[in-house]
Amino acid sequence: MGNKIGIIDIGSNSVRLLLAEIGEKKSIRIINELKEYVRLGDGLDKDNILSEEKIDLAIKTLSTYKNICDSFKVSEIIVVATEAVRRATNRTEFLIRAKAIGLDIRVLTGTQEAYYDYFSTINSINVTNAILMDIGGASTEIILVKNRKLIKSISFPFGAITLTEHFQINDVLDEEKENSIINYLKEKLNTLDWLKQATGFPLIGIGGSIRTVGKIQKKAVNYPLNLIHNYELKYTDVLGIYESVKTKNNAQRKKIKGLSGDRADIFVGAAALVKTLMELCSIKTLKISRNGIREGLLYSHICENDTPIDNILSFSIDNILFNHNMDSVHSKHIYNLFKSLSIELKDLIDNDEDLDNIIKTAAMLHDIGSNITYYFHHKHSLYMILNSQIYGLSHRELVMSACIAANHRDDNLPIDYQEYRAILSKEDLILIRKLGILLKLSESLDKSMTCQVKDLTCAIHKDSVIIKTISTTTAFIEIREALNCSDTFKDIFNKKLYVV
Amino acid sequence: MGNKIGIIDIGSNSVRLLLAEIGEKKSIRIINELKEYVRLGDGLDKDNILSEEKIDLAIKTLSTYKNICDSFKVSEIIVVATEAVRRATNRTEFLIRAKAIGLDIRVLTGTQEAYYDYFSTINSINVTNAILMDIGGASTEIILVKNRKLIKSISFPFGAITLTEHFQINDVLDEEKENSIINYLKEKLNTLDWLKQATGFPLIGIGGSIRTVGKIQKKAVNYPLNLIHNYELKYTDVLGIYESVKTKNNAQRKKIKGLSGDRADIFVGAAALVKTLMELCSIKTLKISRNGIREGLLYSHICENDTPIDNILSFSIDNILFNHNMDSVHSKHIYNLFKSLSIELKDLIDNDEDLDNIIKTAAMLHDIGSNITYYFHHKHSLYMILNSQIYGLSHRELVMSACIAANHRDDNLPIDYQEYRAILSKEDLILIRKLGILLKLSESLDKSMTCQVKDLTCAIHKDSVIIKTISTTTAFIEIREALNCSDTFKDIFNKKLYVV
Repeated sequence: MGNKIGIIDIGSNSVRLLLAEIGEKKSIRIINELKEYVRLGDGLDKDNILSEEKIDLAIKTLSTYKNICDSFKVSEIIVVATEAVRRATNRTEFLIRAKAIGLDIRVLTGTQEAYYDYFSTINSINVTNAILMDIGGASTEIILVKNRKLIKSISFPFGAITLTEHFQINDVLDEEKENSIINYLKEKLNTLDWLKQATGFPLIGIGGSIRTVGKIQKKAVNYPLNLIHNYELKYTDVLGIYESVKTKNNAQRKKIKGLSGDRADIFVGAAALVKTLMELCSIKTLKISRNGIREGLLYSHICENDTPIDNILSFSIDNILFNHNMDSVHSKHIYNLFKSLSIELKDLIDNDEDLDNIIKTAAMLHDIGSNITYYFHHKHSLYMILNSQIYGLSHRELVMSACIAANHRDDNLPIDYQEYRAILSKEDLILIRKLGILLKLSESLDKSMTCQVKDLTCAIHKDSVIIKTISTTTAFIEIREALNCSDTFKDIFNKKLYVV
Repeated sequence: MGNKIGIIDIGSNSVRLLLAEIGEKKSIRIINELKEYVRLGDGLDKDNILSEEKIDLAIKTLSTYKNICDSFKVSEIIVVATEAVRRATNRTEFLIRAKAIGLDIRVLTGTQEAYYDYFSTINSINVTNAILMDIGGASTEIILVKNRKLIKSISFPFGAITLTEHFQINDVLDEEKENSIINYLKEKLNTLDWLKQATGFPLIGIGGSIRTVGKIQKKAVNYPLNLIHNYELKYTDVLGIYESVKTKNNAQRKKIKGLSGDRADIFVGAAALVKTLMELCSIKTLKISRNGIREGLLYSHICENDTPIDNILSFSIDNILFNHNMDSVHSKHIYNLFKSLSIELKDLIDNDEDLDNIIKTAAMLHDIGSNITYYFHHKHSLYMILNSQIYGLSHRELVMSACIAANHRDDNLPIDYQEYRAILSKEDLILIRKLGILLKLSESLDKSMTCQVKDLTCAIHKDSVIIKTISTTTAFIEIREALNCSDTFKDIFNKKLYVV
């Protein structure tokens, strides 16, 4: 049992609680997430004063969250507030009332908010250079990342709600209104001379509004994964969504799949902002991040000196293995055998891309499904890999790893290809089969899970492949089992398999 | 970390290893299963002598299994042998060679074999009265169970392989051959006068051959579950399968979906035996058991004085919660609230069957999916309930529990009904919706997971339902959350929901 921590984030729109458990080796397990639509920022635009009613509701919510944290015996509660409290002239009253129930609220500056956005992204999406943008209710952060480092950031005091109120764009966007908001946004963005350095970088979008852009696109293409994090859209997708929502009134927008009813009125401004930034920086790709400042605070809590995690895929895999109490000796051994096979048989695999992410994920997690039950565990591994929120992989790499893992006991493609056409090409299916049988072979060569076969070499001949196993004892069961792969091997590579 | 145990079973056809971990409260987790087709019984019919070649292969296999057990640091290895060794005149030689590698083989008598079949079944299928039948390669056990007690048993020295060899029925079964085998089986079965007591009891079938009967039927109806244990067939299904295989030759049989190639030659005799027993005892239902003597030995190991598990569903649920390290305080609380709601709103549910199995499973395991990841955990709960090998439920109850659990955060039917038509009726869908919203309400009433709402009462009026919560403090978040269920509640029950 690790330490538990509660992270509370007081935004203009909602107050949220993230409860997480931090185990050995900094493993993270999310226990609970709560969200109350307090709308603390309502009416703030008029006089910069938090209303008594909203303060009462926020304190009531905080008090409940505090009780929850206490009952989960958390070792620490981190409470932060953003734009609404930052801007309010009566924030001291609010902070004192929170203090009275035992909560020290840290009011983040715009720069700090941008930093935690950066830190949550860099630890959960594989990216070297990027522009990040977090559109909140009343503020927007934009961050320039180069070589995984935060180079510049800004926090603008406008967001999805304030843009909507200011430009009165909760209904159909006529030409006049469109011109005025787009010009306003261009003007603001043009004040950032450092944006020029980001030309062609991918945009990583944070916050509910941008997530909604992703959700709409996912629905439109019938996307098979229950996963928004690291979902990729092209500029033309974003443009299409913007063009479609701007001509609709609020009621019509509510009917768009992926756009939740309580966001329909404030969505157009946010969409305009994403589109404008992408055009300004010639950005071709938008990636969605599910994580934001809460996760940034969490990573900051576990990373010494705020040094980002070095290899987020490895960290993620270790995290999953640890949380499921899985012995990783066998998994690591399979990874080594699989790597040896894939190097030795490179000419047969006949693919130039770097496959290590896929090979590592499939090998390290091939048995993870036995956590559900031993029976059919290869199928459960597929499900768990697809659904375990693994960081550091593209969605294509994720699906391929999951299929290859499932192939460790079954030669058939374990998914319905028609469903996954938005992610996998026909060539990917061939690659899955090839790597699938090599994983099955690796698994056969450690059938007894006792690492009898230390390593291997392969000789590729015209009509055959000979695998020479290197072991201290005769790996009786292993070789018997490996030979059971020969029919499928022959099918795929058109060569007879010998194992000695 | 619990104790590990290895159970090795030396049959006529295969030698198998079951590796299990036994945790606190006798929880069981299967770690690994291995099977080698040693075919120790080959040629035994001629002279009752195990061949040197087969003994060598069996000892090699046992030696590997021993190494595996050692490397898993098991605290005990149980090794049993059945008919092939029982019958062999040179069994002492074999036993001595096994002893030399450190394995004490216990040669089970037919009565003991029948007993472990009984004990594996009684602890994994909810049944009061039944006939059990285990068709092995060279023997068949038949057991009469009344009030969960073993009343009578017999072990016949014929099985799927020996029947095939004796009647030479590996090809199309002509009328003459059919008459001779059916008459032979009737004659044998008629020696059991106690079979009369079993008239109309369900038959529970054990062993690979009977499992194959189930697999063929599952394929034929496109069954949606990856689950053979407790799968039910009607007599007419069994008859249909028998009639279909008897007119086919071996090559044609190999093409039947569900019938594996290495069983096609020995399947007809086993099918004839099942059919004949069902007819003799007017049995309408065959249930398939996935478990056999290995699992019987495992249960015997954990059950004090061989007293069967009292409530196998509760045991199974506790087992899953324990293996996933899930805090069950919240689950138990949800179960109590859900039970209260279902009792108070019985008239609205409008269903006479005993729903406790479903309510208990859905409530106790509604959060189990968060073991995969917190995000979309209601969907993962569906997957895990369907795939966790829960004992004590019919397949219909299992699917209903899984759907209701998924409804704790989402009102939609989480499965494709077309796929599940073999299991659920249209009425079941209505029942799922009703119980689903009541589980969601229960979950809302413990939103903070701190048991604020102790209990509740309901008043049903013409146009409304009033839920009165009983709590020590004002359950602020809970009541807010419960009221979010009112639209769906109104949709389903056509009554306005009040929560106070």
